[in-house]
Amino acid sequence: MTTGFFGDIAKIKYEGEGSTNPLAFRHYNPDEVVLGKRMEDHLRFAVAYWHTFVWPGTDPFGGNTFERPWFKDSMDAAKMKADVAFEFFQLLGTPYYCFHDADVRPEGATFAENTRNLNEIVDYFAEKQAKTGIKLLWGTANMFSHRRYMSGAATNPDPDVFAFAAATVKTCMDATLKLGGENYVLWGGREGYETLLNTDLKQELDHMGRFLNMVVEYKHKIGFKGAILIEPKPQEPSKHQYDYDVATVYGFLKNYGLEKEVKVNIEQGHAILAGHTFEHELALANALGIFGSIDMNRNDYQSGWDTDQFPNNVPEMALAYYQVLQAGGFTTGGTNFDSKLRRQSIDPADLLIGHIGGMDCCARGLKAAAKMVEDKALSAPLANRYACWNSDAAKSMLASGTLESIAARVESENINPQPKSGQQELLENVVNRYV
Amino acid sequence: MTTGFFGDIAKIKYEGEGSTNPLAFRHYNPDEVVLGKRMEDHLRFAVAYWHTFVWPGTDPFGGNTFERPWFKDSMDAAKMKADVAFEFFQLLGTPYYCFHDADVRPEGATFAENTRNLNEIVDYFAEKQAKTGIKLLWGTANMFSHRRYMSGAATNPDPDVFAFAAATVKTCMDATLKLGGENYVLWGGREGYETLLNTDLKQELDHMGRFLNMVVEYKHKIGFKGAILIEPKPQEPSKHQYDYDVATVYGFLKNYGLEKEVKVNIEQGHAILAGHTFEHELALANALGIFGSIDMNRNDYQSGWDTDQFPNNVPEMALAYYQVLQAGGFTTGGTNFDSKLRRQSIDPADLLIGHIGGMDCCARGLKAAAKMVEDKALSAPLANRYACWNSDAAKSMLASGTLESIAARVESENINPQPKSGQQELLENVVNRYV
Amino acid sequence: MTTGFFGDIAKIKYEGEGSTNPLAFRHYNPDEVVLGKRMEDHLRFAVAYWHTFVWPGTDPFGGNTFERPWFKDSMDAAKMKADVAFEFFQLLGTPYYCFHDADVRPEGATFAENTRNLNEIVDYFAEKQAKTGIKLLWGTANMFSHRRYMSGAATNPDPDVFAFAAATVKTCMDATLKLGGENYVLWGGREGYETLLNTDLKQELDHMGRFLNMVVEYKHKIGFKGAILIEPKPQEPSKHQYDYDVATVYGFLKNYGLEKEVKVNIEQGHAILAGHTFEHELALANALGIFGSIDMNRNDYQSGWDTDQFPNNVPEMALAYYQVLQAGGFTTGGTNFDSKLRRQSIDPADLLIGHIGGMDCCARGLKAAAKMVEDKALSAPLANRYACWNSDAAKSMLASGTLESIAARVESENINPQPKSGQQELLENVVNRYV
Amino acid sequence: MTTGFFGDIAKIKYEGEGSTNPLAFRHYNPDEVVLGKRMEDHLRFAVAYWHTFVWPGTDPFGGNTFERPWFKDSMDAAKMKADVAFEFFQLLGTPYYCFHDADVRPEGATFAENTRNLNEIVDYFAEKQAKTGIKLLWGTANMFSHRRYMSGAATNPDPDVFAFAAATVKTCMDATLKLGGENYVLWGGREGYETLLNTDLKQELDHMGRFLNMVVEYKHKIGFKGAILIEPKPQEPSKHQYDYDVATVYGFLKNYGLEKEVKVNIEQGHAILAGHTFEHELALANALGIFGSIDMNRNDYQSGWDTDQFPNNVPEMALAYYQVLQAGGFTTGGTNFDSKLRRQSIDPADLLIGHIGGMDCCARGLKAAAKMVEDKALSAPLANRYACWNSDAAKSMLASGTLESIAARVESENINPQPKSGQQELLENVVNRYV
Repeated sequence: MTTGFFGDIAKIKYEGEGSTNPLAFRHYNPDEVVLGKRMEDHLRFAVAYWHTFVWPGTDPFGGNTFERPWFKDSMDAAKMKADVAFEFFQLLGTPYYCFHDADVRPEGATFAENTRNLNEIVDYFAEKQAKTGIKLLWGTANMFSHRRYMSGAATNPDPDVFAFAAATVKTCMDATLKLGGENYVLWGGREGYETLLNTDLKQELDHMGRFLNMVVEYKHKIGFKGAILIEPKPQEPSKHQYDYDVATVYGFLKNYGLEKEVKVNIEQGHAILAGHTFEHELALANALGIFGSIDMNRNDYQSGWDTDQFPNNVPEMALAYYQVLQAGGFTTGGTNFDSKLRRQSIDPADLLIGHIGGMDCCARGLKAAAKMVEDKALSAPLANRYACWNSDAAKSMLASGTLESIAARVESENINPQPKSGQQELLENVVNRYV
Repeated sequence: MTTGFFGDIAKIKYEGEGSTNPLAFRHYNPDEVVLGKRMEDHLRFAVAYWHTFVWPGTDPFGGNTFERPWFKDSMDAAKMKADVAFEFFQLLGTPYYCFHDADVRPEGATFAENTRNLNEIVDYFAEKQAKTGIKLLWGTANMFSHRRYMSGAATNPDPDVFAFAAATVKTCMDATLKLGGENYVLWGGREGYETLLNTDLKQELDHMGRFLNMVVEYKHKIGFKGAILIEPKPQEPSKHQYDYDVATVYGFLKNYGLEKEVKVNIEQGHAILAGHTFEHELALANALGIFGSIDMNRNDYQSGWDTDQFPNNVPEMALAYYQVLQAGGFTTGGTNFDSKLRRQSIDPADLLIGHIGGMDCCARGLKAAAKMVEDKALSAPLANRYACWNSDAAKSMLASGTLESIAARVESENINPQPKSGQQELLENVVNRYV
Repeated sequence: MTTGFFGDIAKIKYEGEGSTNPLAFRHYNPDEVVLGKRMEDHLRFAVAYWHTFVWPGTDPFGGNTFERPWFKDSMDAAKMKADVAFEFFQLLGTPYYCFHDADVRPEGATFAENTRNLNEIVDYFAEKQAKTGIKLLWGTANMFSHRRYMSGAATNPDPDVFAFAAATVKTCMDATLKLGGENYVLWGGREGYETLLNTDLKQELDHMGRFLNMVVEYKHKIGFKGAILIEPKPQEPSKHQYDYDVATVYGFLKNYGLEKEVKVNIEQGHAILAGHTFEHELALANALGIFGSIDMNRNDYQSGWDTDQFPNNVPEMALAYYQVLQAGGFTTGGTNFDSKLRRQSIDPADLLIGHIGGMDCCARGLKAAAKMVEDKALSAPLANRYACWNSDAAKSMLASGTLESIAARVESENINPQPKSGQQELLENVVNRYV
Repeated sequence: MTTGFFGDIAKIKYEGEGSTNPLAFRHYNPDEVVLGKRMEDHLRFAVAYWHTFVWPGTDPFGGNTFERPWFKDSMDAAKMKADVAFEFFQLLGTPYYCFHDADVRPEGATFAENTRNLNEIVDYFAEKQAKTGIKLLWGTANMFSHRRYMSGAATNPDPDVFAFAAATVKTCMDATLKLGGENYVLWGGREGYETLLNTDLKQELDHMGRFLNMVVEYKHKIGFKGAILIEPKPQEPSKHQYDYDVATVYGFLKNYGLEKEVKVNIEQGHAILAGHTFEHELALANALGIFGSIDMNRNDYQSGWDTDQFPNNVPEMALAYYQVLQAGGFTTGGTNFDSKLRRQSIDPADLLIGHIGGMDCCARGLKAAAKMVEDKALSAPLANRYACWNSDAAKSMLASGTLESIAARVESENINPQPKSGQQELLENVVNRYV
């Protein structure tokens, strides 16, 4: 028995490239083996509760456009929403989902009521997980929507808000553990400032560092085996957010002794807002040893805010999964779709169609990336470009040279280096052979 | 005897606010005491050799517009340029100047010739410094203009370029030491990439870390007492530069164990290119303990590249120097004008007029900032906003709380925090009382 | 008798520069004569109903932060809101206000109910206007918030939406006429597209042109003497909006024969989003003969969306009002504050403080601009720069030259023009003498 | 006999998708028929003299990286450059090329010398064209690089510069006519301003309008049958350029009565700098009836300046050529590659490889676009979306409705429109079936 929300739409199947069925996969074939692993196990898709089941189609200039029967603030509505959500996961065949506490339970009048509401839904989810085999990729706490958090959660000038936030994270970590979640995510939408005029940057950073240490301590205490992930974003809603980008988060983690304990959940759209490509953020996280998971939502290049759209550009996806493969693929992480329908896409079928297109796009990207790896299409020229650093002289200069000893050698040997082509166009053409 | 380049323009004097003389200061009064210190000692102005005496007015779509008699590639021309430069410093009354090696000496055919050329000019400068009392704020090496550096200096795939760069930094540090320079700056315009497709991020970052460690080792070896400064910039000329912004540089320094040894030289225009306000970068550097010096060149808010213009917005300068004062003022650092004339400003007088306007703008900003400090105009409301954190309960929660203990307290005490106004408009109005 | 919403705050007075009273004007002195006109008559301030009384503090990531007693969907609440609004106008001493239909009346179930609700409130406003002397600067229709408009109003693919929009504009023009409004504004937040894939650009532009012609015809029919104004904005909420900027609106007006009938209402923040300075948009509108009115809300330079903040940068305001004065000052137009409090500014006093700061900032800008006009500080050098065009030879070349005749003269006279300094730094310094 | 510059590289051939030869086409097959026309006749590729043969690899922070034997300022060098250029066109098999006067002849001391130099090269080109069958897509005058133009060409405050510019355009139009050029292009890099403080916007626009009228008059006078094209760009080198984007150019043309005489040459990178997608600019030009030709150079989405790179994103190219096909394809226009190598790509082969990749990318885009046209993949849903406007009632409302008559109908019929899904995700998925 189904909720009926999706009408007579049946489970989405892989029909191959030739299909013109808008409700079929053309590229995502879960059991297809890519680089020795099933595609499903590579991509580890998760559906985000928030944009998919909670967001009502509002924007800063407009009200609801979606009219879902569960848009009420009650436990019954929360359960109806859960029924539809798990139906959706099954129709789509995604192995994972993700949620914030506020997505899944009604807001209570007190912290205790919030906790009771959450726990009731967690039990409801646990049953559904058991029945369907669908798993939780990560849980998280929404500490940015309620007005109590308007000036920050861990970084609030009011210690009571810090306390409320800490208590809330505890309940969400408990919920995540109970549901077998594989990661726990923190996105600090209000951890930042609107104006420096009323902000003590040092104190707020220190509080945020201490808060995150508490999170890590609690993880170990309760035996949570998953990863703790920070999701960088430069701004919006805050004018400036402390978790600006991967490089900033790394410095923060180093400063508070957490670089071995915490990784990053990187979102394509956030990368772009920070002035980076997605592949840059992925490559950097890998180079710094903090790559964790991804949110595969693109931003519109012409819009200066987070549009959180489904990915649709295959060449970009290929470069993204190439970096994921360079990092050894996902361990606890996966491909979360924190992706919004456009607010004009008001039909239930649009929800499926958006996800299908995004998943197909990722699948094509993955396959292209895997082929580039197999062919050493990029890695061979890369190794060649840096090959001179493998000489003993170069290694020794790097290991034990000094400015003085090197200068002496430059002068005595009259070193006068000649530039070599960087071959960017050639390499771009190579990528285009795969996409 | 003068070069005659500036015609009959005499030393620029302070004439006070009422003056309409374009060749007089209206606000910069070196001996005026502000917060117990002479204005000159607060601001520590330095003129940048590069844009002021070397840049010929080119842009990506146009050739030279300036026609300076010293635009030739010879030692004689280099000396004529030095004569004009020191004349300029004296006319303007700036206590400091800054230079890259390539600004002051002709390019030689070999490293050895470069070194000889540089040393000859350094001797020439030393004499002039002795005669005029003008000092060197910082020296630096240009490792971005010559084609050998097109793929990076310390991060070049070719170890010979690393070597050439290391040798060059040695000679520039020697020159800086000899001239009594108070800082040594590194700006890594080519330390970054054009495309990730040909870039080994991890290897390049490691090489850059090693290079900077060599610089620090050499500083100690030769007894250079000044600060080593990195100048962050997000991009341009490279698509991505590793020293993206203050937060990124901090993470890099922590990663390579250099956060006690190296500080930052922050440029207003670079801050804006990175998506930050200038005051953000200053405040963050102060919070992280790496504030060093500033380049006071604004960018145009509508242009996506570095315009390096003279500062002209007093409210912005007030917020900038407010942060400098919060950091305790400059120690070795100062206010460098790495500032370009507009390429249509082709008269010698324009050079002076640009600097005069910029210095006056800084002076007004400093005075406004100082008055805000004296009045506790911003610091009193700030302290008040965070006052609850001074309670024993709050301190103890921060020091030794756990998610569990805090959650228990939130539940037992039914903590339900109420938001308080952030008063941004009030504080902005307060600032406007001072500017 | 008052509503009590503002507690014991009394009418805001001008206390002069020395005042530190946050609830007093330091620069805005309505009766002070500037360039022969009272300051109030120059600035013609209007308070915007929308952000000031309707916006609840939401953003894309957060819910209400403001809790106003009138936040209910009833006629009683609408009247309480009106009571507070007129109290606010009187406290502040602003001569004008502006509103959208949806700001002032509850949303009805049908068009007829909307009209009845609006008319009832219009009567209520009329009484209040008569009692207080406060006037309506402009009225407008909100055709972007309700879901019926999600795909456009005049540009909707559904003719019924076009009809509903047309009917709505009629009622709002009727209301504006009845209240003696001095302008009628159209802001087309949904007149644009989310994706070209589902958009017929030509057809939508034609419909929008026809719609605007209907508006103009109706204006003449009912004898509305005010100006019809379009408010340009490049994007947000739509990915692309047809009224992108002043230049785009001008081309649109020319295309549909409306350039003599319609002017522009220019917003600072929208200018910035479109990649322009505010003064550019003002100067261009003046050059094209379509300058109408302004919305004086700044955007944050680091945020890629509309922040609609109170103006606080005096030098920018000076340049803006300099352009307004160049256009001969306002006729029907004025200075509307479509300005939002920050969502953390939750106290009633913040509403007043924001407006006071913004008005003071405008007043300082106006005074500085007026002094520049009086002194011909910018106009004299400008006239001088273009003086050669006053020669008979130049005039004749422009009027009747041909490429051939000019080329012949260039060759025969060996014309070889020499560049002259553009003196940008000098002129910027001149402006800084006034701000 | 060849120049030897390209070593032993032979004519680039189409080898099909399977090829891994970097010096072969995989998609561009000139004779392949697409929508009833040869691919070559659809795409009409032209190589740009400027970036391909003249640009030396400089950027604002670096000097030459390319070392071409013809980088000298003499007629002999100009001829060597021409020899290499025509060799290049033949190797690549492009049917067209484009040039500025300053690209092809040495700069003379006077206008007369410039003209003589140009004419000598034009004769040299004419011979080569005759021999090779290669044609000129367009000619243009460089009126932005020389210092005489630093404050504008047609918009210069100095009438002598206007005259020099007019004379220069005459010679370039003569050259274009003589060489059988199919269009004449104007790009006004200096027609704009650095600061409004020294700019008379109205006067400059009027001069530019008059100048363009002279160009059109001369075109008719000499019987030039090609199109006159303006190339919009928002900024760089100028802070603001008058030909900002397609919409702005349209308003300008309408204002000066030229909208039937002048079309636009749209560049992808310029579209992006102006905040638009390329397809937006193309669609708008088509809707406004001024579509002319394209410059197929992409910009980097993370860089705020013109990077002029070879196109490499197939989905973007598909959307671009879809718009070109909607406009009926090129008539006089074509696909110019005003495309720069990266400055690290210093090998002669890189020049070919960049063009090959770009041409292949365009060819794939064209084929995908053509297939979408054939399948009505986008046009059928589009027609369906607007179908209600085909009803007589809708047509009549649009043609002769008034606000009053429409309002009466809305009220009497109680029109209450219900939103319909915009199906953006569905349409994006459809596009992905073709790329």
